[in-house]
Amino acid sequence: MAKFEPSEAVLSGETADVYFAHTVDILGKEKLNPVATMQVFSSRAGILCGIEEVKALLARVLPEDNREVWALGEGEAIDRKEVVLRITAPYQSYGLYETAICGILAHCSGWATAARECVDGAAGIPVISFGARHVHPSVAGVMDYSAIIGGCQGCSSIAGARLAGVEPSGTMPHALIIVIGDTVKATLAFDKYMPTGVPRISLVDTFKDEAEESLLVAQALGDRLNSVRLDTPAERGQVTVDLVKEVRARLDLAGFQKVKIFVSGGVDIERIKQFIAEKAPVDGFGIGSYITSAKPIDFTADLHEIEGKPIAKRGRIPGITLNPRLKRIM
Amino acid sequence: MAKFEPSEAVLSGETADVYFAHTVDILGKEKLNPVATMQVFSSRAGILCGIEEVKALLARVLPEDNREVWALGEGEAIDRKEVVLRITAPYQSYGLYETAICGILAHCSGWATAARECVDGAAGIPVISFGARHVHPSVAGVMDYSAIIGGCQGCSSIAGARLAGVEPSGTMPHALIIVIGDTVKATLAFDKYMPTGVPRISLVDTFKDEAEESLLVAQALGDRLNSVRLDTPAERGQVTVDLVKEVRARLDLAGFQKVKIFVSGGVDIERIKQFIAEKAPVDGFGIGSYITSAKPIDFTADLHEIEGKPIAKRGRIPGITLNPRLKRIM
Amino acid sequence: MAKFEPSEAVLSGETADVYFAHTVDILGKEKLNPVATMQVFSSRAGILCGIEEVKALLARVLPEDNREVWALGEGEAIDRKEVVLRITAPYQSYGLYETAICGILAHCSGWATAARECVDGAAGIPVISFGARHVHPSVAGVMDYSAIIGGCQGCSSIAGARLAGVEPSGTMPHALIIVIGDTVKATLAFDKYMPTGVPRISLVDTFKDEAEESLLVAQALGDRLNSVRLDTPAERGQVTVDLVKEVRARLDLAGFQKVKIFVSGGVDIERIKQFIAEKAPVDGFGIGSYITSAKPIDFTADLHEIEGKPIAKRGRIPGITLNPRLKRIM
Amino acid sequence: MAKFEPSEAVLSGETADVYFAHTVDILGKEKLNPVATMQVFSSRAGILCGIEEVKALLARVLPEDNREVWALGEGEAIDRKEVVLRITAPYQSYGLYETAICGILAHCSGWATAARECVDGAAGIPVISFGARHVHPSVAGVMDYSAIIGGCQGCSSIAGARLAGVEPSGTMPHALIIVIGDTVKATLAFDKYMPTGVPRISLVDTFKDEAEESLLVAQALGDRLNSVRLDTPAERGQVTVDLVKEVRARLDLAGFQKVKIFVSGGVDIERIKQFIAEKAPVDGFGIGSYITSAKPIDFTADLHEIEGKPIAKRGRIPGITLNPRLKRIM
Amino acid sequence: MAKFEPSEAVLSGETADVYFAHTVDILGKEKLNPVATMQVFSSRAGILCGIEEVKALLARVLPEDNREVWALGEGEAIDRKEVVLRITAPYQSYGLYETAICGILAHCSGWATAARECVDGAAGIPVISFGARHVHPSVAGVMDYSAIIGGCQGCSSIAGARLAGVEPSGTMPHALIIVIGDTVKATLAFDKYMPTGVPRISLVDTFKDEAEESLLVAQALGDRLNSVRLDTPAERGQVTVDLVKEVRARLDLAGFQKVKIFVSGGVDIERIKQFIAEKAPVDGFGIGSYITSAKPIDFTADLHEIEGKPIAKRGRIPGITLNPRLKRIM
Amino acid sequence: MAKFEPSEAVLSGETADVYFAHTVDILGKEKLNPVATMQVFSSRAGILCGIEEVKALLARVLPEDNREVWALGEGEAIDRKEVVLRITAPYQSYGLYETAICGILAHCSGWATAARECVDGAAGIPVISFGARHVHPSVAGVMDYSAIIGGCQGCSSIAGARLAGVEPSGTMPHALIIVIGDTVKATLAFDKYMPTGVPRISLVDTFKDEAEESLLVAQALGDRLNSVRLDTPAERGQVTVDLVKEVRARLDLAGFQKVKIFVSGGVDIERIKQFIAEKAPVDGFGIGSYITSAKPIDFTADLHEIEGKPIAKRGRIPGITLNPRLKRIM
Repeated sequence: MAKFEPSEAVLSGETADVYFAHTVDILGKEKLNPVATMQVFSSRAGILCGIEEVKALLARVLPEDNREVWALGEGEAIDRKEVVLRITAPYQSYGLYETAICGILAHCSGWATAARECVDGAAGIPVISFGARHVHPSVAGVMDYSAIIGGCQGCSSIAGARLAGVEPSGTMPHALIIVIGDTVKATLAFDKYMPTGVPRISLVDTFKDEAEESLLVAQALGDRLNSVRLDTPAERGQVTVDLVKEVRARLDLAGFQKVKIFVSGGVDIERIKQFIAEKAPVDGFGIGSYITSAKPIDFTADLHEIEGKPIAKRGRIPGITLNPRLKRIM
Repeated sequence: MAKFEPSEAVLSGETADVYFAHTVDILGKEKLNPVATMQVFSSRAGILCGIEEVKALLARVLPEDNREVWALGEGEAIDRKEVVLRITAPYQSYGLYETAICGILAHCSGWATAARECVDGAAGIPVISFGARHVHPSVAGVMDYSAIIGGCQGCSSIAGARLAGVEPSGTMPHALIIVIGDTVKATLAFDKYMPTGVPRISLVDTFKDEAEESLLVAQALGDRLNSVRLDTPAERGQVTVDLVKEVRARLDLAGFQKVKIFVSGGVDIERIKQFIAEKAPVDGFGIGSYITSAKPIDFTADLHEIEGKPIAKRGRIPGITLNPRLKRIM
Repeated sequence: MAKFEPSEAVLSGETADVYFAHTVDILGKEKLNPVATMQVFSSRAGILCGIEEVKALLARVLPEDNREVWALGEGEAIDRKEVVLRITAPYQSYGLYETAICGILAHCSGWATAARECVDGAAGIPVISFGARHVHPSVAGVMDYSAIIGGCQGCSSIAGARLAGVEPSGTMPHALIIVIGDTVKATLAFDKYMPTGVPRISLVDTFKDEAEESLLVAQALGDRLNSVRLDTPAERGQVTVDLVKEVRARLDLAGFQKVKIFVSGGVDIERIKQFIAEKAPVDGFGIGSYITSAKPIDFTADLHEIEGKPIAKRGRIPGITLNPRLKRIM
Repeated sequence: MAKFEPSEAVLSGETADVYFAHTVDILGKEKLNPVATMQVFSSRAGILCGIEEVKALLARVLPEDNREVWALGEGEAIDRKEVVLRITAPYQSYGLYETAICGILAHCSGWATAARECVDGAAGIPVISFGARHVHPSVAGVMDYSAIIGGCQGCSSIAGARLAGVEPSGTMPHALIIVIGDTVKATLAFDKYMPTGVPRISLVDTFKDEAEESLLVAQALGDRLNSVRLDTPAERGQVTVDLVKEVRARLDLAGFQKVKIFVSGGVDIERIKQFIAEKAPVDGFGIGSYITSAKPIDFTADLHEIEGKPIAKRGRIPGITLNPRLKRIM
Repeated sequence: MAKFEPSEAVLSGETADVYFAHTVDILGKEKLNPVATMQVFSSRAGILCGIEEVKALLARVLPEDNREVWALGEGEAIDRKEVVLRITAPYQSYGLYETAICGILAHCSGWATAARECVDGAAGIPVISFGARHVHPSVAGVMDYSAIIGGCQGCSSIAGARLAGVEPSGTMPHALIIVIGDTVKATLAFDKYMPTGVPRISLVDTFKDEAEESLLVAQALGDRLNSVRLDTPAERGQVTVDLVKEVRARLDLAGFQKVKIFVSGGVDIERIKQFIAEKAPVDGFGIGSYITSAKPIDFTADLHEIEGKPIAKRGRIPGITLNPRLKRIM
Repeated sequence: MAKFEPSEAVLSGETADVYFAHTVDILGKEKLNPVATMQVFSSRAGILCGIEEVKALLARVLPEDNREVWALGEGEAIDRKEVVLRITAPYQSYGLYETAICGILAHCSGWATAARECVDGAAGIPVISFGARHVHPSVAGVMDYSAIIGGCQGCSSIAGARLAGVEPSGTMPHALIIVIGDTVKATLAFDKYMPTGVPRISLVDTFKDEAEESLLVAQALGDRLNSVRLDTPAERGQVTVDLVKEVRARLDLAGFQKVKIFVSGGVDIERIKQFIAEKAPVDGFGIGSYITSAKPIDFTADLHEIEGKPIAKRGRIPGITLNPRLKRIM
């Protein structure tokens, strides 16, 4: 499981909304530091993710002798408006971190929820997160971690794999093939230098027809070839159900029944469902922007008690909201 | 203008797709390091953002004596499939950074583009980015920076304001009012302790009807009150056109014509257009999730020349793509 | 049950289409007064209403010794094209009243049908007809009567309540509160002067936040307060599910579990369904324009026999249409 | 112009919402009777109708020496939310009539607005209101009056024609033809007994094909025949553009170019537009349920001043709303 | 069952795509005539038709001692992409006929599939193909034959009836009635001259109302009248459910319970479903353009083996596709 | 221009609706053969086609001394319900041919109209009819002829080209390449044996990537290569705009600027518009099923005069319909 460490930028309040800095400042000057209960709830249903990183932050900032924290667990399914976190502690100890707490949960839960959709749609066929290239590198790791919490078997970024405690998944990029200038040669070079544990997955759409290149690399590597990856670009109609069936059939005809087929390139939940419904012989899906373009699941934090007395802003109900699924974590 | 510094995680390749690490490794062992030209193009039209951060990265990694970089500028409008960046340099110097380059541009351009929509819709009324709470804190700063590149006048996060070279914008959170227990008292405390330069903007929907609280804080602060902020939650029907008109009228009737009205809470482009069309007297909009939930604008990087010779994968056209808007930046 | 009396305007033919006056005139001069059978059928399915008023009219105009009338009952569900009334009598005795007969059934059945939809949607929660202000006062009474036939428990107009044999339902209008200038004072005045039997229902959205005013009136009246009425206008986002839940929670927190919540203001069948689906703790609905803007269910009257011989215009089938549900009423 | 007289049921408050009776009762006991200003505005754009009837009511109930009434005129186009009526007078003199005032305007304006749509669509071809049979007889007259305010040239009910100061329009009903048993004979009887001023319009779809019956009645009446009316029922496909063209052609071929064609039967704005677009030679339209099923245009009455001081409920703006189109009428 | 004979135009290659003529020419000059296996599959699901005509063609052109043909049967339901025909023979013997083979199957299967939809929709009521007038006479026969394969009980063209081995179905055209000038006289003439076996079906919408003409011809022919045909044109609203019910009722009232009702005129699957759902007493449907405007079901022919070796173009799978439903027919 | 000859099947009445045979039989026995005027009109707007074939039929069957025929010309645009043909002659001379006349016009005009849409959409780029394989071979020729009347520059069937007086257009089928086993060899064989006048158009999607095969055949044939044809199947995503641009760019980079690009494979009007809008460098389109699956434009024939006297069935207007565009042709 991931080991999260709050960054200096978060701890210093640098990433916070400035009005929380003002608030802590004003309350300090007013010498107001009541024990306050804050509850955090989600704007829609999904998969909760980021709570581990939030816990790491709270463990650093809440006073050990005056805190009580209840939460749901990483990866749990949550309902719309469900309270997922409740903090009771002196307000000044955590007021500055409302922005970070909500932001971590929002972004991570959004990614995990989209990943879960894909995994559910894929009906048992492994799904790998391939979207690091679509997000800012500062969150590439947590994005991939969230996808794995959502059910993905692996991810392409080194940072994400480290957080999730898995090996990063990779095939080969078009760049390797273009620099070497030939798919078969590139695959042979990959095979020559990569450690034994790295599966040999050849990308077969760079220079020739996918079916043709599949047979060429299969003939070149023989039993060492683990998979071919089809990543046909939109300019060529993307990977279709029929293309997968045809490559499978041509590989089988040539005796390469053991070579798997891995599909990527603009795969989303609709296309996953189509591949499954039409029984395309896919052995793995690589998902990019469907996960990375998922909307964050916005979370809202509200104070519900001050020094044990129920209070709330208009639109919220004063006092603690019961949620029997919450577990005390601190 | 922002001063970007590539992080250690990016420079080390930690945030990259693992297959680029493999590729650099294999090519190194094969002693292949040709001068290669990579072009980056967008998947859809929008506002380019992140190119400054990409330039800071390239400046660190490309050999000064063997590089040529052409790019469009931060904040420029771009077309679908337009080439926005062209790098010519030894492939090993930059191959590892394809993931980061695409990811920075994708995420930042997505945010900037959504911000531009809001700014265009608001027809001259200032728009402030309020969405830090909806993204992971590691990107809260670049998100707000991107929103400002897209046209926002300010942002709520300290980190974003620093990158964009502006003062962070803040009013007061519901938490301050709830801890103090009274909107007028909270506003007076804010006024007492905040430096002169910070505008006095009171949040007027916490405990009483918005129109009622607006009059109370106006009466309490007199000329020092800059604005009231309406942030009515969905549970109470959000801020409507008529509410703004009514608060304006009631403030005017009581002699507070100078107090401005700032609107936030689930504001999106449709609601902005409605406020403008129905001539609601809004003096500023705070936008959160419309910007933060914008889909990244995916960018694609392709090699188009190796040692000066045109080449490309299937689906792309070999050789350099002409784009007279590109400027040489390195 | 209502006691209807045909008005002089109806009996004189003043409200009839002029060609029926011409027809009776011509047939009189031609000395043609055959026994004719007229059947009336509906243009769509719904709840039959108005038949009692039609019977009162027929009882006045048909010759007692030469008439036979079959009909369905007030409030019965009817099918599209179902015959709901069959009159056999000398044509001149009733020819003039075709307009009135069809009009009474059309308007009343339209209202009753819309009311029934609301009542069915409300799943046992009482529904009161509040729409007198949306119809011409000449039909305010029959509209409210029809709503009660459709299943409403009460209505706001005195005339409608009298026709339906119930007490009129009322809370207090905004005007009372505005003239008195304070919600609590107005509620106390109401309590002071109204007879014991009139339930104390306070309207709580006039000057302050609904939750705030609810608590104020509850504290002022104590056990005598029967209900609060939420009637939030569209300018403030109408009454939402969450507002009801919050007011309920705040009343309960303050010990006013017995105070009921009555909801009005633009409530239609969609919103009723939403309140029910999301389990909003509503104790009563006030429905206005959903009922009053219901389209009349047009009825058509056709002659099917003349002196016992089947006849009909093109498009209709000569002779009597069998409908075993019809009962002889005259 | 119509001469309206408030009915006893209205004057007595019988048709009012009961809470206005309570309000007047309470204020009387409290001896509160301030001069109050009430404004009435519409919920959507349309044609104002009913204001003459409202004026007749106000003239009866407001004290002549202490009243000021401003209003728009009967038949004027109004905007959404436009103030159409402003009353300043002692509240007890008119408080009881809020229900009636709003109801008269709502129902009448709804009908007038639908009529205007038809008249605009008909592009100069006369439109007659034929819907008395679809409304309760108590409002048949005001409905037809409203249709004429909306632009109809005539109406079928005697009561409506009297209110509007026109002759009622009528052709002949199917009943006359069925009782007499023959279309030609019925037309001849009509011609024999009706006064000279009543146009001879024969209904030609009762027993035979419309074109066939048109020729038969034209041959029977010769120059005295003014028009034929086509009223084909839905069971026979309603009146189509082609049917009108064919009847016109067959009449012309037989030398009856002067006989006009009048179309009725489920005609709505869409069908009017089709007849006009396809140049069907229609000489008049009879409109029924399109007008009678029009939704009332709900009106809202609000107090905006008490004894000259601005006040309003939440959601409305205190004080008088300027509308330069208002004229003082009392 | 039909006896098809390939035409000289087909056999000579006149109707082929010219490039097949070129291909046979080139291969002949190259002395290439391998045994090749061609498979034909459909573009969508439907009813297979035309295979008998294709078999007649193949029987003429394939060498008896070197051919193997597998196929599905005429009228069988087929799936999308299902192989319906497999030919193994020297390529030059059949290469020229690919155009004709695909074209026959495409056009005939399209018609048969639309006919099947109607027959299924009609729920047991006979359906007759009446569309010869909507297709080129060169295919009027095969169109009607295909409709009968799809389930129609008969057809109007003599050529189609001959191919399908049934008697042609006919009633009488409007032209006969117009030339004779009277529906009853035309029906009597038909009855006088037509052989006993031809059912007397009178067309009853030419000059008078359908119900009126139905009674007139029934009275004229008595027991000899088999049916009336309703063919009301669109100008008169087409045949409606209610018209059929009314004609049935009027015939029954007059004692003609045995006379059937046949419906035609723009009947499509939606209208069939409506007639069935509303229980219109129809005894037969005549279908024209719904069948004739059916899109052909395109078929594709591919070579999958050359001299026993699997081969295929890109997008297809080399080698024979298994389909256990295929039967060897040659 | 085409030279049409009526077939024996048409002349004998074999392809007619049987009731026309009955009609001619009955009228013959009744010795009724009046001069009758029949008019033919279309059910919707489009391009008239087939009138030449109809004229050839009428020229054979109408008595030269007693006929008058007016018509519009082949390829003229026609309106909905426009009369396109008027025949005045003894009824028995042409009554039997109503089915054939309507059918020829319906089918041919349907095809010509769809072709015209494509030609208009293609904005000057040549369009060739490639759909012979989707229609029954008995109409392959007239289908292609109709497409050319609609504006196509050529067609693939020999029969169609003959009727239209052009050379058939052909490239090479996949079958030629598969039998020879190699695209380059097949193209060289084509080049070796085909006459000089036949343009060398190579089909480049059979075994390898389209761009790769394009370069191979261009290198093999040099200046003699006229075009490449892209026909990518749906299984591979069809031909995309980007594929055409890429093949063009790769051919140009290799110095083959003169080689044209011809696009086929499921091309319809939407895709043509997209190719044009996105400026794909297409030099010709091959259209198949968009034309062949066009619905026939149904035509209706009606008698309007018998022996000079106006008459018509219900729904039509008796007498001749004026159409100044008609020209006398016989």
